[in-house]
Amino acid sequence: MRAVVMRDRRLQLADVPVPAPGPGEVLVRTLACGICGSDLHALRHADRFVEAARRAGNPSPMDLARDVVMGHEFCAEIVEHGPGTTRALPAGTRVCSRPMLMRAEGVRTIGYSNDHPGGYGEFMRLSEALLLPVPNGLSTEHAALTEPMAVGLHAVEKARLAEDDAPLVIGCGPVGLAVIAALRLRGAGPIVAADFSPRRRELAARLGADVIVDPAQLTPWQSWREVAAVWRDPSRAPALPSWMPGPARRPAVVFECVGVPGVLDEIMAAAPRYARVVVVGVCMEPDTIYPLLGISKELNLQFVLGYTADEFGATLHHIAEGAIAPAPLITGAVGLDGVAGAFEELASPERHAKILVEPGRREPGAPLRT
Amino acid sequence: MRAVVMRDRRLQLADVPVPAPGPGEVLVRTLACGICGSDLHALRHADRFVEAARRAGNPSPMDLARDVVMGHEFCAEIVEHGPGTTRALPAGTRVCSRPMLMRAEGVRTIGYSNDHPGGYGEFMRLSEALLLPVPNGLSTEHAALTEPMAVGLHAVEKARLAEDDAPLVIGCGPVGLAVIAALRLRGAGPIVAADFSPRRRELAARLGADVIVDPAQLTPWQSWREVAAVWRDPSRAPALPSWMPGPARRPAVVFECVGVPGVLDEIMAAAPRYARVVVVGVCMEPDTIYPLLGISKELNLQFVLGYTADEFGATLHHIAEGAIAPAPLITGAVGLDGVAGAFEELASPERHAKILVEPGRREPGAPLRT
Repeated sequence: MRAVVMRDRRLQLADVPVPAPGPGEVLVRTLACGICGSDLHALRHADRFVEAARRAGNPSPMDLARDVVMGHEFCAEIVEHGPGTTRALPAGTRVCSRPMLMRAEGVRTIGYSNDHPGGYGEFMRLSEALLLPVPNGLSTEHAALTEPMAVGLHAVEKARLAEDDAPLVIGCGPVGLAVIAALRLRGAGPIVAADFSPRRRELAARLGADVIVDPAQLTPWQSWREVAAVWRDPSRAPALPSWMPGPARRPAVVFECVGVPGVLDEIMAAAPRYARVVVVGVCMEPDTIYPLLGISKELNLQFVLGYTADEFGATLHHIAEGAIAPAPLITGAVGLDGVAGAFEELASPERHAKILVEPGRREPGAPLRT
Repeated sequence: MRAVVMRDRRLQLADVPVPAPGPGEVLVRTLACGICGSDLHALRHADRFVEAARRAGNPSPMDLARDVVMGHEFCAEIVEHGPGTTRALPAGTRVCSRPMLMRAEGVRTIGYSNDHPGGYGEFMRLSEALLLPVPNGLSTEHAALTEPMAVGLHAVEKARLAEDDAPLVIGCGPVGLAVIAALRLRGAGPIVAADFSPRRRELAARLGADVIVDPAQLTPWQSWREVAAVWRDPSRAPALPSWMPGPARRPAVVFECVGVPGVLDEIMAAAPRYARVVVVGVCMEPDTIYPLLGISKELNLQFVLGYTADEFGATLHHIAEGAIAPAPLITGAVGLDGVAGAFEELASPERHAKILVEPGRREPGAPLRT
């Protein structure tokens, strides 16, 4: 089959074997697969990715000397059932799945693996038990956004928001936008969001942010302080000692959705006392923090990853129902021969949020829809 | 009065003015004041201390060009009441207090201040409203340990321990020992504790640790894994998928009580998934972490500082009742002329845990009680 492989730290179009579905697995045809910022990171920092797994005591998910077909945000169509399947969903059914394979020897990742190709190829194998049928009327493109939007839902769940927590979203790339959508869904807010890119700020507004800041003009914390000074029920605002300059502000919950070195330090320096920081952005490089800043303000850092099975299923449902409306995220689509170029395009926040890979596109050099 | 001042980044014995008690304040004679690791840090890294305050947006607590009398773990005796005091506690009463002054213009620290001398001097001024009388029968020395033991109580409170959380204490200096005592008080355990120093491991045992590890011999995580595999009520252990190597382990709560660069990174690399790390050790230097480690395991870092008024009062009560028995911590006592030497002694974990400064000691060069 045709697939884009990571080989010698570069993306190349190649011909690779069609994966054979094992027991309980199905062969699917990839219909659409989003390009994730983590894939960009993984291509640039593949060694760190492997090194972090080693230090965490996990077997390395990838041998960089061998090909890897990335892509873990997909919508696909069942082609063939492997042995021992229930065939509850017939061939031709459009499905989503968490990007993992349940095997007797353990869970295996799809897309960051030498053995289990992801959505940047024409076919994948998936575990039948994880398949979720795409509801009628939901487009393949929007269904493919289930995975990235579930990341936002999970981050907001892990934040354990209380009624008056006042959120601030730092960074409005796809991860930040997914967090904004999940905050909106939950009724949390007002949502303050910040990004240097005008395009991304516009997307933040469309996804539901209430106050949107250009950090080049204004510190997002100034906007946050104004918003957080207004309690939903003023009787819940704690009484401040007379000498403390008022008003009492709502608790701060900051979503770090940038994932580059230095951002965590900036947040720790600027955050108010007792702020909770949910680290959603994936920083693959070593990062410097000043623990004394965290200590002096008793900050809490909650690192998050992925989503639960329930959160993934709920996200697909929310998208189908329109409760999460991710359409604005999609800023382009390419065939397999456009993937390497799309990775380069995504380096510019002005042009793109989410580019979908459609392996079935046959037109060579299909133009980006921007 | 005689006091040890931090001047030109060094400790010197000096003659400084007796502080005058303002409205609502009392003048007290320092009876005993523990030397805190933070004071050692502050002497060595005074600039970082000031810089962190600046970056956190707080006014600097100290001007390093002026004298500072440190010392914030004290027991004192009321000498004189200032204007507007209730005199509820008469002169001669032994008292403890949180090291802060409640003033109309705001809370001011005692001991990290140019204006409000701490316990390394003969006299201090304290806010009458914060005074806690030392119960009859409680020694001055043990009462002076209220402050450092309250730090442990607060850290354990902030950990929000659930029934089956399995604690691991990294570092058994005074902070780690205070955490061990608080865990013991709470009935949490078994308590696994680790320190390179034989002396400190012995103290950890006396304070109530159950399993004590020399990290030079064995990773503390190996001991922790064995302990955490045994659930208090085995029916609460979650069922693991068949492919996951067993047994299910209790949730990990790690107390970082070392406070030097690199320790947080080591903990993040070694901790199991979903571990909560309570950062109690005060690292004044920049520190490198690998966010990807935190993300891949969804770690939570809770930085903590100090204690609440209630926790401070409860700690004094627990010490008086014998529920917290900090006596083993006290490994020496010096007069003011011995403070600079004691700071040097404390660099060796083999000789000391807590040295008390007794400004009333008149013998020059009083030998260390070890």
